[in-house]
Amino acid sequence: MSDQITDMDVFFNPKSIAIIGASDTFKFGYNMTKYLLSSNFKTYPVNINKDFIFGHKVFKNINDIPDDIELVIIIVRNEFVLQTVKDSVKKGVKGIIIETAGFAETGIKELVKIQEEIEKIAKNSNVRIIGPNCVGITNFNNKFTTAETDFTQSIDGGTISVIAQSGVLGNIFIEWSASQKIGFSKTITLGNKVDVDEIDILEYLEKDANTNVITVYLEGVKRGPKLVEILRKLTKPVLILKNGRSEIGSKAVLSHTGSIAGNDKIYDTIFKQYSGIYRVNNFYEMFNIAQVFATQPLPKGKNIAIITSSGSLGIIACDEIERLGLNLAVLNELTIQKMKSVSPNWTSLKNPVDLGPSLFTTFSHSLKAILNDECVDALLYIFAVPQMPIKAFSLPITPQLREMRNLSTKLNKPIITCVFGSRWIVEYFLKHSDKYKIPIMTQISHAIKAFKFMHDFAVSNKI
Amino acid sequence: MSDQITDMDVFFNPKSIAIIGASDTFKFGYNMTKYLLSSNFKTYPVNINKDFIFGHKVFKNINDIPDDIELVIIIVRNEFVLQTVKDSVKKGVKGIIIETAGFAETGIKELVKIQEEIEKIAKNSNVRIIGPNCVGITNFNNKFTTAETDFTQSIDGGTISVIAQSGVLGNIFIEWSASQKIGFSKTITLGNKVDVDEIDILEYLEKDANTNVITVYLEGVKRGPKLVEILRKLTKPVLILKNGRSEIGSKAVLSHTGSIAGNDKIYDTIFKQYSGIYRVNNFYEMFNIAQVFATQPLPKGKNIAIITSSGSLGIIACDEIERLGLNLAVLNELTIQKMKSVSPNWTSLKNPVDLGPSLFTTFSHSLKAILNDECVDALLYIFAVPQMPIKAFSLPITPQLREMRNLSTKLNKPIITCVFGSRWIVEYFLKHSDKYKIPIMTQISHAIKAFKFMHDFAVSNKI
Repeated sequence: MSDQITDMDVFFNPKSIAIIGASDTFKFGYNMTKYLLSSNFKTYPVNINKDFIFGHKVFKNINDIPDDIELVIIIVRNEFVLQTVKDSVKKGVKGIIIETAGFAETGIKELVKIQEEIEKIAKNSNVRIIGPNCVGITNFNNKFTTAETDFTQSIDGGTISVIAQSGVLGNIFIEWSASQKIGFSKTITLGNKVDVDEIDILEYLEKDANTNVITVYLEGVKRGPKLVEILRKLTKPVLILKNGRSEIGSKAVLSHTGSIAGNDKIYDTIFKQYSGIYRVNNFYEMFNIAQVFATQPLPKGKNIAIITSSGSLGIIACDEIERLGLNLAVLNELTIQKMKSVSPNWTSLKNPVDLGPSLFTTFSHSLKAILNDECVDALLYIFAVPQMPIKAFSLPITPQLREMRNLSTKLNKPIITCVFGSRWIVEYFLKHSDKYKIPIMTQISHAIKAFKFMHDFAVSNKI
Repeated sequence: MSDQITDMDVFFNPKSIAIIGASDTFKFGYNMTKYLLSSNFKTYPVNINKDFIFGHKVFKNINDIPDDIELVIIIVRNEFVLQTVKDSVKKGVKGIIIETAGFAETGIKELVKIQEEIEKIAKNSNVRIIGPNCVGITNFNNKFTTAETDFTQSIDGGTISVIAQSGVLGNIFIEWSASQKIGFSKTITLGNKVDVDEIDILEYLEKDANTNVITVYLEGVKRGPKLVEILRKLTKPVLILKNGRSEIGSKAVLSHTGSIAGNDKIYDTIFKQYSGIYRVNNFYEMFNIAQVFATQPLPKGKNIAIITSSGSLGIIACDEIERLGLNLAVLNELTIQKMKSVSPNWTSLKNPVDLGPSLFTTFSHSLKAILNDECVDALLYIFAVPQMPIKAFSLPITPQLREMRNLSTKLNKPIITCVFGSRWIVEYFLKHSDKYKIPIMTQISHAIKAFKFMHDFAVSNKI
């Protein structure tokens, strides 16, 4: 295994690419082949059975290609992988991504052995290898991808990077996040990790100017002490989802990517020990919280204010605030007086501020009063309004987002909006969340946990 | 408080209705007024300031209405509510729903006092009162509603009934669930509960032929021992979300509906004590699990099989299965052999069965083998496939749903599908879930918890 880390860049910005096993019929890797061949990335298809693919000349062997190749993507059947790796090394490539599955994770002796052979090649050469059993890399900054990412349609990038083990999930993440307006910088799936692992990528992302938040989906770790060392050094916030917690879960890890899940308590202890490392419970939580880190200023304290149109949902937020050791902000008497001057007598103006049906007439005034209150460090806005009056009377939602954005920027306080209701309402908010950089989510517990992690991160960085 | 329980029916099937405070300008209750006046429900608008509303003659006072009135809906401002209640009692109505807010929950002495006056009237008359501070009833069976439910658009009903405290949420629930294809029978919001409370409604729903599952959102309870008594007697499964768990949460409960949240540990003990009563953590979990109870057969044991296209997501399911004390089904060797005959050598056929990219060619065969295995009591299907190949090659999803439905019915085993990916994919599944009665959700933890509760319910009912 090479000690260089700058060599990772070949996976994200390759100057020339060969796809071994490229195909124009429906199989794994079809879309990637089609996209790369039509893109500006210098791409050569290799396939022993084909002459032309999507109008491009096909080479029988990578060594037939007249130009230098920096990166190889291998999608041939598992029994042919070892030979194509050897061919690639002979060609003098810098990086290989093996996407094909069917190695150590099967538990079948011969297939485990092939993986070990590939591992040896990586150790004894300067070639870096990602995989097998993965979908490699997607770089939203230059639109390079070895996954099924559809860059022919516009996808908004961002500053969140993702390290994952599973190939299928590498694609799914991207599609889901596009729906949620969660912007990625780079996504990396590592599969069985014969060479490149999360440590290499963490080091790369720590230095990557386009990455502000790192999210990691982990099944097993091969270099434990080294992981601990890098986690200690990282300055960017890292959200980790570690599965295979249970006994039956860890057995499933073994047959998924051939990794050892390890004792969950040890992971938990390690993750808790270092500032900036946060463990999450599921993917939705991971990306919702990452989005807050990526778009909101850090809170200066732990006093949370709530504006809601539903008292019940305000109470749920209170329960979460106490559970996570944050404070429900005690509003200044002046703040309450300011709100009282415009509110009906039945609105509840103590935090949580429940504006009920008066939401649209009193929101602006209340928002200003609350965010300007020096006892308030962060705001959770809970929107729960039936869609009928919104549609019938064109009630203005985007002005609320704009006002929140302006005040959040001006006063340097983070804001999250939780939306409850029909798909139509949630979609409406999401459509505009990107422009106004106000994270939209549907789970109050994720929002409060985001504030908690942001607060802890601020404290540990003495901000 | 009246002891009769059959008197609840006036709220769900009123023969004649008066809306006091009816209005044709934008305010709370506008949509409800518009809907009821255009519906077949015999509805009379009452408003001292209007002559006609949506073409209907308006009465200045309920006592001016020449016909008998069974149910009154009050939406006038809080200071006028007491008088309209007195007028209604004089008219001889059977039920009153006070939707107006601004009573005990404000903590303002005069407003608390008005609520107490109304409470006295309920005690000393035969009139039953729901509210104040609620949106009353929606009955999906006869399309009667006192909330903002849009029955002018088609909403699919179902067999899940909802008891909630908060008015705003009463509306939101319905809109959200329509998006999720979760079918309701009746939704009831109780607000400050001067008279009718969750106990009255639980007794009603237990007898209601159209309700199979009861969900309850609870903030505080006034008749604790009586609630325990009814919970013990119920034969239908009940899912309870109880908030105000924390200290600051319970303070917020007080200023929301003027209720006392009570000690959370006591609730927890009570809920655990009775079979068929299950506590959930949030609304999404509540309705996802309710949907499983409403549409799936009870499992005969606790052995769960998993078919997945993503190994990682299979592992998450394994962790949840162990955490909740269920079993990962150990597949019969014959079942594995049946699947092996059609699967590529790299697929992982031990449970969780990870079909990976071969999902569409091997699903049908695998599903049949697994469901026919007598060691399998329930199936979780985890669908995580990028949308590009689905769109490009029209990969068939509805046949999968149909096959699952057919086998589930034939073999009497519950199935849940978890879908991961873009909004488009989730929507695609949801669009067809209703027809095939396979619950679709996006959280694996909800699916496994649903199996757990179903199993417990089956055991406690000796099924």
